[in-house]
Amino acid sequence: MHSATSFLQDLAILMLFAGVSIVIFSRLKQPVVLGYIVAGFLIGPYLFKPGLIHDEDSIKTLSELGVIFLMFSLGLEFSIRKLFSVGATAFIAALLEIVVMIWIGYEIGRFFSWGSMDSLFLGAILAVSSTTIIIKALSDLKMKHERFAQLIFGVLIVEDILGIGIIALLSGIAVSKGDINAVGIIATISKLTLFMVVSLVVGIIMVPRVLAYIARFQSDEMVLISVLGMCFGFCLIVIYLGYSVVLGAFLIGAIMAESRQLAQIERIIEPVRDLFSAIFFVTIGMLIDPTILQTHFVEIIVIALAVIIGKVFSCGMGAFIAGNTGKTSLRVGMGLSQIGEFSFIIATLGIQLGVTSSYLYSIAVAVSVITTLTTPYLIKVADPLSNGLASIIPTPIAKVFNAYTQWVDSIRLHGDKAVLAGMIRKIIMQVGVNLALVTAIFLGVAYFVGPIGQWLGHWVVNVDYRKAVICGVTVVLSLPFLIAAYRKLKALSMLLAEMSLKGGNIRLQRILAELIPALSIVVILVLLSALSSAILPSRETLIIVVVVIIALTLILWRWFIKIHSRLQIALFETLDQSKDNHHG
Amino acid sequence: MHSATSFLQDLAILMLFAGVSIVIFSRLKQPVVLGYIVAGFLIGPYLFKPGLIHDEDSIKTLSELGVIFLMFSLGLEFSIRKLFSVGATAFIAALLEIVVMIWIGYEIGRFFSWGSMDSLFLGAILAVSSTTIIIKALSDLKMKHERFAQLIFGVLIVEDILGIGIIALLSGIAVSKGDINAVGIIATISKLTLFMVVSLVVGIIMVPRVLAYIARFQSDEMVLISVLGMCFGFCLIVIYLGYSVVLGAFLIGAIMAESRQLAQIERIIEPVRDLFSAIFFVTIGMLIDPTILQTHFVEIIVIALAVIIGKVFSCGMGAFIAGNTGKTSLRVGMGLSQIGEFSFIIATLGIQLGVTSSYLYSIAVAVSVITTLTTPYLIKVADPLSNGLASIIPTPIAKVFNAYTQWVDSIRLHGDKAVLAGMIRKIIMQVGVNLALVTAIFLGVAYFVGPIGQWLGHWVVNVDYRKAVICGVTVVLSLPFLIAAYRKLKALSMLLAEMSLKGGNIRLQRILAELIPALSIVVILVLLSALSSAILPSRETLIIVVVVIIALTLILWRWFIKIHSRLQIALFETLDQSKDNHHG
Repeated sequence: MHSATSFLQDLAILMLFAGVSIVIFSRLKQPVVLGYIVAGFLIGPYLFKPGLIHDEDSIKTLSELGVIFLMFSLGLEFSIRKLFSVGATAFIAALLEIVVMIWIGYEIGRFFSWGSMDSLFLGAILAVSSTTIIIKALSDLKMKHERFAQLIFGVLIVEDILGIGIIALLSGIAVSKGDINAVGIIATISKLTLFMVVSLVVGIIMVPRVLAYIARFQSDEMVLISVLGMCFGFCLIVIYLGYSVVLGAFLIGAIMAESRQLAQIERIIEPVRDLFSAIFFVTIGMLIDPTILQTHFVEIIVIALAVIIGKVFSCGMGAFIAGNTGKTSLRVGMGLSQIGEFSFIIATLGIQLGVTSSYLYSIAVAVSVITTLTTPYLIKVADPLSNGLASIIPTPIAKVFNAYTQWVDSIRLHGDKAVLAGMIRKIIMQVGVNLALVTAIFLGVAYFVGPIGQWLGHWVVNVDYRKAVICGVTVVLSLPFLIAAYRKLKALSMLLAEMSLKGGNIRLQRILAELIPALSIVVILVLLSALSSAILPSRETLIIVVVVIIALTLILWRWFIKIHSRLQIALFETLDQSKDNHHG
Repeated sequence: MHSATSFLQDLAILMLFAGVSIVIFSRLKQPVVLGYIVAGFLIGPYLFKPGLIHDEDSIKTLSELGVIFLMFSLGLEFSIRKLFSVGATAFIAALLEIVVMIWIGYEIGRFFSWGSMDSLFLGAILAVSSTTIIIKALSDLKMKHERFAQLIFGVLIVEDILGIGIIALLSGIAVSKGDINAVGIIATISKLTLFMVVSLVVGIIMVPRVLAYIARFQSDEMVLISVLGMCFGFCLIVIYLGYSVVLGAFLIGAIMAESRQLAQIERIIEPVRDLFSAIFFVTIGMLIDPTILQTHFVEIIVIALAVIIGKVFSCGMGAFIAGNTGKTSLRVGMGLSQIGEFSFIIATLGIQLGVTSSYLYSIAVAVSVITTLTTPYLIKVADPLSNGLASIIPTPIAKVFNAYTQWVDSIRLHGDKAVLAGMIRKIIMQVGVNLALVTAIFLGVAYFVGPIGQWLGHWVVNVDYRKAVICGVTVVLSLPFLIAAYRKLKALSMLLAEMSLKGGNIRLQRILAELIPALSIVVILVLLSALSSAILPSRETLIIVVVVIIALTLILWRWFIKIHSRLQIALFETLDQSKDNHHG
C-alpha cells in the first residue's frame, strides 16, 4: 500500500503541476510542451532539493511509455503513401539538413573538447526538427495552409523516417563502443532497410485485416486493447531483434495508418498518448540541472545559434536547390529552425545506453526551449528578411539565382516523360520489395536453421538431405517473389527498348533490352547462393535440388504468379482503401 | 534500460493476452471482464510457473490506477441529481440487499470457521452487485429500456454510494484491528457523511467553473491533463484524511458529472479508463490460485449459491415492499444476482490492509465468475418462474400479495400532499447541508488551530485574545450558513403551521410553529459550543466575542443572506446546467 500511495502522490503532483502550467502556457500562447518541461523542472530533484517526486523510477517507467505512444502517433500520421507523394524539395532539404546538422553538431562537440560519442549524439540531437512545435507555431500564425507550410510538412515526414534510421544507427554504434567503419554502417543501414520493408509489406497485408475483423464488434474498448496488444507485441519483436522500441512503435503506427480504422484508432489513442507524453515531457523537465545550465552557458548559446543558423541555411538551401524561390526557401528554413521531441528521445537513448555525459541532456533541453521560443519570430521575420536580402544582393547574383530556379523548373519532366519515369521508378521499387522479401525468407530460415534441422531430424536422418530439404523449401517459398522480380525486370527492359525506338542508338538499346532480364537472373542467382551458404547442401545433392526447383518452376510458373498477384492485390487493396481515409 | 524493457515486455504480454481473449470472449458473447480475468489467469504466476510476468509490482501499480479510473468513471455516471430522482424501490432494495448480504456473508464465513475479519470482508464482497455485468447482460438481452431495468439502475446508483461507505467503514475497522463499537461506527459514518457533503457542495461550486475556464482553450489535451490533475489531487487530500482513494475518485467524478464538460470528459477519459481497468482486471486474474479453487471448492459453490439466492430474495423483497408487482420484483432480484468490480476492489483492499487471508481473493473472483455466467440465464428465467410461482401459490396468499401492492400504491402521496412532502424534504436537506458546512468550518479551524495560532502570534500575543479572534472569525465565517439554516427552519415551521390550519389541533400546531425556530437556535448554539471547545477562550473574553458576533449578525444580517444566496445560486446554476447534460 505504501509504495502505491507514494507513486500515486508523485503522479498527483506531476499531474497538478502539468495541469496548472499548461493552462498558464496556453494563456501565454506558448506551446504546451514548454509548460510540461517547466512543470518538470519545478518538481524535479534539482530546484527544490530533494524534489517533490519520491519514486522517480516509476515515473520514468511511465515516461518510457510516453515515448512509445509519441512514436506510435507519429507513425499513425506518417503513412507510406504520404512519403511517396512528398516532392523532391522534402527529400533534398531533409537530407541536406540532417547531414549538415550532424556534422555541425559533431564539430561543435569536438570544438568544446567533448568525447566523440557526446559529439556524435549532439549531432544527432540537432538533426531533426520538432513536428509539435512547428504545427503549434504555424497554427498560431494561421499559416498552416500556405505553400511553404506544406513543404515543411513534407520535410518533417522525410525527417521522421531518417530520424528513425539515425536512432537505429546510434544504438548500433553505441553498442559496438564506437568501433565502426563504413562497411559496418552500410550493413546496419541495409539490415534496417530490409527489416522496415519486410515489416511494412507483411504488416500492411495482415494488420488492417485483423483490425477490420475487430472493428466488427463495434467496441472502442476492444479496438484499444487489441491495438495496444499489437503495438507492444511488435515492439517486443523489435527489441528482440536488437532495435530501439522507438522504431517498433513508429513502424506499427505506419502500418496501422493504412487500415480503414485509422480515424477510430487516432481518436481512441489520443487521450492515452496525451497522458503518457505529458509524463514524458515532464520527466524531461525533471532532468534539467540548473548548475549545468550555468556552467555550460556558452555552449548552450553557441549550440542554439548553430541550430538556428545551420537549419535556416541547410533547409533553405535544400528547398532552393529543389527549385523553390528564395522567399519560400527562407520561410521553409526559418520554420524548421528548432529541435524538439526527437532530440529528447535521442538524448534519453544516450543516457539509457550509458554512452553520453550527463550534461548533454540538460543542454539539449535548454537549446530546445530557446529555439522553440525563437521559431514563431523567425517565421514572422522571414518575409521582411528575404525582401531586405533581395535589395542588398547585387543584381547579377540575383539574376543567377532566378535563372537557376527557372532552369530547375525547365529540366523537370513533363507529360509522357514524367509518366514513363514514374513507371520505371515503380518497377524498380517493386523489384526491390520482392528481393527484400526473398532476402528476409533466406535470412529467417538461416536464423532458425538449428531448430528447423532438429525438428526435421525426426524424419530425415542424413544431415545433407536435411539441408537439401531446407534449402529446397526456402527456394520454393521465395519463388513467387523471385519470379515476380524477374518479370518486373523483363517489363522494365521492354519499356526501355520501347523508349529507345523513339531515338538514339537503336542497336545498343536492343542489346540492353535483351541483356537486362539475363543479367537480372545472374544477379538473383548470385544473391541466392550468397544468402544460402548456411543451408547449402553438398554439391551432388545441390544439383538434384536445383533440378527439382527448375522443374517445379517450369511446371508451377503460372501458379506462382497467381499466388504473388493475390498477395499484391491484398497489399494494394489496403493501400487504396487507406487513400480514401487520408483524403477524408 | 533493462528494468524498463522487462516492464515493457510484461505490458506487451498482458496486452497481447488481453486483446486475444477479449476478441474470443466477445465472439462467445461473454463479458469482456471475464476475458481479462482469464487472460490474467493464463499469464499469472500459478498456472505456468513462474508465470509470464516478471515485474509484478509495476503491473500492480498500474492496476491501482485502474481502480481510480474505474471509480472516477462510476462517479461521472453517478450524479447527485440521479440519486435524488431514484424512487423508494431503489433505496429499499439496495439497503435490504446490502444488510442481508453482509449478514449472510459474515454467517457463511463463521460457518466455515474463518476469522471475523475474513467473514466481515466476505460479507462486504457479497454486498454490491456489478454494474458492468448487468449492463452487458441487459444489452445482450435487449432489455435495457424495460421498467425493471430502470429499477435495477436505480438500485445500482444507491449501491454505489453505500458501497463507498462500506469501503470507508472497512478501512476504519481494519485499521482499528476490529476493535469497534456502535459509537465508533456512528462516528465514522457521520464523519464520512460530513466529508462527502462538504466536498460535494464545495466541489460543485468550484470545479465546474474551473473546467468551464479550461474548456475555453478548446484543447482535449488540456482538459485531460487538468481533469487528471484535479482527480489525483483530490485523491491525495482524501488519502491524507485517512479515507480510501476509491472514495476520492468516485467523489471527484460525481462532482465533475455536474459540469457542462461532462460529455467531453467522458469521451476523453474512456480510453484511459479502458486501458487501466483492463490492467486491473487482468491482475485480478493473475491472483487466482488454482489450488485454492480446488481446496475451497465447497465454499465457492456455497457462496455462489448464497449470492444468487440471497440477492434474488433481498432485492426482490425490497422491490416488492416498495410496491412493485411480484413479476417485476423477481426480475429486479434476478438481474442483481451477481458480484463484480466492487467486490474485487474490496478484496484488494483486504489484501492491501493485510487483514484478510490469501484464499479470500481467489474465492471472490471464482464466485464472481460463476455468478456472472448465471446472470443472463436468471434474467431469462424470471418470467417463467414468476408465472410458475403464481400458479403454485394458494389463491388466498396471492390475494394478500396483490392487496399489499395496491395498499402501497394507495398510501403514496398524491397531488398537493406530494408537493408539500417534497418541499419539506428539500428544506430539511438544505438545513442539513448548511449545518454540515458549519461543522466543516469548525472542524477545519480546530484541526489547523496550531499553525493558525502560531501565525496569529505575530500580532496577538495574549493566548486568550488569540483564541477569541480565532473563535470569532470562525463564527463569522459560519454565519451565512447558520443564518440560512435558521431561516430554512423558520420557513419549515411556517409551512407546517399552514398545513395544520387545514385540520387537526390548531392550537398545538401554532405552538409548534413558534417552537421550531426557537428550538433550532438552541440546537445550533449547543452544536456550536460543542464544536468550538478547542478554540473557546475564557468565559470573560467569550462574552465579549458573543456580544460582538450578535452585533455583527444584526448589522450584517442582509449582507450575510446575500452572500449565502449567491453561493446557493452558484450551486443550483451548476446543477441546473448539468441537468441539460444528463438529458442530452
